Amino acid sequence: MSPVKVFGRAISTNVARVLVCLEEVGADYELVSVDFLAGEQNSPEHVERNPFGKVPALQDGELVLFESRAIAKYVLRKYRTSEVDLLRESSISEAAMVDMWTEVEAQQYYPALSPVVYECIIFPVMRGVPTDQKVVDESLEKLRKVLGVYEAHLTKNRFLAGDFISFADLSHFPFTFYFMATPYASLFESYPHVKAWWEGLMSRPSIKKISANMPTKF
Amino acid sequence: MSPVKVFGRAISTNVARVLVCLEEVGADYELVSVDFLAGEQNSPEHVERNPFGKVPALQDGELVLFESRAIAKYVLRKYRTSEVDLLRESSISEAAMVDMWTEVEAQQYYPALSPVVYECIIFPVMRGVPTDQKVVDESLEKLRKVLGVYEAHLTKNRFLAGDFISFADLSHFPFTFYFMATPYASLFESYPHVKAWWEGLMSRPSIKKISANMPTKF
Repeated sequence: MSPVKVFGRAISTNVARVLVCLEEVGADYELVSVDFLAGEQNSPEHVERNPFGKVPALQDGELVLFESRAIAKYVLRKYRTSEVDLLRESSISEAAMVDMWTEVEAQQYYPALSPVVYECIIFPVMRGVPTDQKVVDESLEKLRKVLGVYEAHLTKNRFLAGDFISFADLSHFPFTFYFMATPYASLFESYPHVKAWWEGLMSRPSIKKISANMPTKF
Repeated sequence: MSPVKVFGRAISTNVARVLVCLEEVGADYELVSVDFLAGEQNSPEHVERNPFGKVPALQDGELVLFESRAIAKYVLRKYRTSEVDLLRESSISEAAMVDMWTEVEAQQYYPALSPVVYECIIFPVMRGVPTDQKVVDESLEKLRKVLGVYEAHLTKNRFLAGDFISFADLSHFPFTFYFMATPYASLFESYPHVKAWWEGLMSRPSIKKISANMPTKF
């Protein structure tokens, strides 16, 4: 059987989200470069895969998928074993906790943290636009509130969805990784349980391997 | 068995997303008012349910959930029957299509359409702030591109995930409903398959019932 193909590059956060899941389940996959910086996501062949012209896309035989969280869930379902079960869909309450904290990442954490990454790393490098400090300061204010909720939660739970690692945790990796390369990484020092949770994620072989291809200096 | 409790009001889009799923599966539920306009989502008893101080929350016995898409999935899994299966998780490829278009709603459609609703309805009513026409115009430009992709897709597929209704379709209901009360509703006229799809959704008993409690004039 030919391996699944992932279109994109590890440097892109949404591609990294998918790659780390493929590594966690030990799937055979092929990474096909679509260079965002060169605009290749708008090529006709890529738009055929993802009509919104974004990365990643995944091809598994006849099936073509886009949207990183949907692709990641597909991968985690397809290669699920009793040892590696990162969605927990055999338990309706555990699956709900995984879904809930996956949504918290998308709806609360990402909107608060990502502008700092955009302003300090992505915009200056990709567009040559200087950092907008007002946006950074407002985002840090929101992020402190979010991290306060996480700290309280992770004081009582080892991982976000409970006492087991899940997709909800992994989904936080790509943007948090780049945040740690901004001048504001030390913010996490004030939230010791969040910091320990993050360090635990960073010690996972899947995340070590994928983050090695995510440069933070240009 | 006591019915599940939903905390919030139907007027709130994220609450409406959950209620419509409860109606679709025919579940017995109790709606407990948490008045967003009166700031009740920040009361200690509600923050106990949702530490981010937002609606909705759901209580089912010991289980307390927040984040509307996670709650909706829990409801659709719990009350799934062979007739009403809106997540299609028994088929890995169908589930992937449901997840993908649910993510498209959250990541592409909502960011393009919701600012128009905020600027034309929510901000003027809730905060007494006049419409920012620049934001509206920029959002309409994005929305045209998104609706163009939807039109091409719905020309070939009856529903978003394929030939079956799913959570991906329903998840579009609350914000689209309010969009149709803005001065820009006629935009949908240019996308006949999208318009027909929307009219199909609006004819569903679940959506008729919940939208009856979503006022568009104040």
